[in-house]
Amino acid sequence: MIRKMFEEGIHLKKKYGADNVYDFSLGNPNVEHPEELKKELIDLACCTIPLKHGYTPNAGYPETREAIAQKIRQTTGVRITADHVIMSCGAGGALNVIFKSLLDPGDEVIVLTPFFVEYPFYIENYGGVVKFVKTREDFSPDVDAIAKAITRKTKAIIINSPNNPTGKVYSKKNIADLARMLREKSLARKKPVYLISDEPYVEIVYDHLTVPSILKAYSNSIVAYSYSKTLSLPGERIGYIAVHPKIYEVENLISALILCTRTLGFVNAPALMQRVVARLQHVAVDVGIYQKKRDLLCDGMAKAGYQFEKPQGAFYLFVKSPIRDDVEFVKILLKQNILAVPGSGFGGPGYFRIAFCVDDATIINSIPGFARAINECR
Amino acid sequence: MIRKMFEEGIHLKKKYGADNVYDFSLGNPNVEHPEELKKELIDLACCTIPLKHGYTPNAGYPETREAIAQKIRQTTGVRITADHVIMSCGAGGALNVIFKSLLDPGDEVIVLTPFFVEYPFYIENYGGVVKFVKTREDFSPDVDAIAKAITRKTKAIIINSPNNPTGKVYSKKNIADLARMLREKSLARKKPVYLISDEPYVEIVYDHLTVPSILKAYSNSIVAYSYSKTLSLPGERIGYIAVHPKIYEVENLISALILCTRTLGFVNAPALMQRVVARLQHVAVDVGIYQKKRDLLCDGMAKAGYQFEKPQGAFYLFVKSPIRDDVEFVKILLKQNILAVPGSGFGGPGYFRIAFCVDDATIINSIPGFARAINECR
Repeated sequence: MIRKMFEEGIHLKKKYGADNVYDFSLGNPNVEHPEELKKELIDLACCTIPLKHGYTPNAGYPETREAIAQKIRQTTGVRITADHVIMSCGAGGALNVIFKSLLDPGDEVIVLTPFFVEYPFYIENYGGVVKFVKTREDFSPDVDAIAKAITRKTKAIIINSPNNPTGKVYSKKNIADLARMLREKSLARKKPVYLISDEPYVEIVYDHLTVPSILKAYSNSIVAYSYSKTLSLPGERIGYIAVHPKIYEVENLISALILCTRTLGFVNAPALMQRVVARLQHVAVDVGIYQKKRDLLCDGMAKAGYQFEKPQGAFYLFVKSPIRDDVEFVKILLKQNILAVPGSGFGGPGYFRIAFCVDDATIINSIPGFARAINECR
Repeated sequence: MIRKMFEEGIHLKKKYGADNVYDFSLGNPNVEHPEELKKELIDLACCTIPLKHGYTPNAGYPETREAIAQKIRQTTGVRITADHVIMSCGAGGALNVIFKSLLDPGDEVIVLTPFFVEYPFYIENYGGVVKFVKTREDFSPDVDAIAKAITRKTKAIIINSPNNPTGKVYSKKNIADLARMLREKSLARKKPVYLISDEPYVEIVYDHLTVPSILKAYSNSIVAYSYSKTLSLPGERIGYIAVHPKIYEVENLISALILCTRTLGFVNAPALMQRVVARLQHVAVDVGIYQKKRDLLCDGMAKAGYQFEKPQGAFYLFVKSPIRDDVEFVKILLKQNILAVPGSGFGGPGYFRIAFCVDDATIINSIPGFARAINECR
């Protein structure tokens, strides 16, 4: 769906000019990377150190892993060490390595809908079976529904907060309830249900919100992190896996993660970027810029009469389609030169996704088109 | 095995000091990267272009793919375009993407022994079945033996020239014979046997040799390339897949390769390095430095009484073990503070591998130890 929109976008932009097309289809960070990033990159390029070193250890440079462990200790209080951190090629690479390490063929993984479109691929790559569980009306995890979906074959659940495509940040209580239920289930089954937390947006939150720590809440947890949004460098493929120090069979799991990093062909996370992020643990893009975009968009959409949950993080708005058929409504938006993605593509039919990581002008100028589209449906 | 040696090496270096241990266990390029690399990297870091662009297309930047296609056209005459080139996270990433795209569970892939240790992982990751075929005494492909190993289930054969662990460069005639046999088999079976050529060492050749082009020889061929050795930047994970324009179902295959780049979590090859290599298509490390190391080593080993095929490329010497049991002989070398890897680890028992990408001094100073070790066996 996203790809179709992408191609449609190219077509429309050719026809009407890029300025007259409102492309909300791609989650590509558009806030400038922090100035520190450039400085450190030039410094590293000049001193040439990273290039001399050849292959890094498969798990990554010890200094980088220690810098990350230190930050996790500071922000969560969880006594994690460098040994529990494995550098990855972004969150996508991290999740593939995690699923390859955890899954036996036929193992079930719970995915909450609406979901990030790549999860089923990542799980099925390694013989896993996806079990979808709907979130509640406000897109928060429905702990009872998840509990009902857990079987003897359930190996893990994957969550994503702040969420793509909804912008939802799961509350501390919600996470605590989920963790309690998972602990009970793990005990009853005598084998753990792993909680995999996909956290590329964890620093992109609004209104001074903080995202509750998964590691703090549940010991059988694994975090997949990416610097793509925090530092606005998605194309560089740098992130990490952080494993709770008290996770079930911790040493075996870490060995498996390192082995799979190698055998899946990642070998190691890009070396130069490992050194860059080691120096930028406390740096992030200006989130206020995204917050302003969210507010511009939410104000305009509310005035136009759309219904939605205001996003608390990430840069997506998941809007109720004024008509039942979201694919049809996205076609109506297309007539206004607006590119959005049908919720059906994310397992959330009846909605559509707006990625608001675009110029403010695109948001402002699109609102009349959004208004005309909803009026057409009345 | 390599890992065991690596750990043993750490232990010995602590005990005797790094200068007194001769570590030939790792294929880590040690020739300085070309000066142009640093210049372009600083230039790119300064102008910040790559960081602004966010995700690149999954297949890579069109400019980079075009620069590579142009070089392949120039050097081989094969009329390849940017569409046939897909950027990858090194050759390891490329091979995983290729096998994921080609293999159905149960498909057989022929691997020539001795072989690079990761191939079986890469193949089995996607349900493939490895069929080992021995090379001839001089480590060249035994076309008759390969022909006999081809069944209805054979999907592909992977070759690696210049070879790790033997340093062999396959001759033009040998490749032509292989290609002819594969064409006949493909015709007879009415489905192609793909020839996958893993070429990270293709620029690391000695005595003014050139490596015959696989693309030129056989149309159902796919090249996996890495810049790790050519530019001495192995940790950066940058390489490409090049597909013959006349390969069976070319468009389907290219779509599959791009999709698998995404779904395996690579998403795209690291963006900054894509831009770097686009500018360095005609640049390589000083191969003369490796050649000098090869000559130092071969002279010393011959004088000490060892038997081997002189490597024509790569930076490995595959030496006949003076005793039948290569693991045992590697232990004898260990007593001389020499770290080598038993051939058994590469499916080549009765041999051991020396990676000569080390300081000249390490080579020179190790020779007396090698001499003592062989004398101990007489």
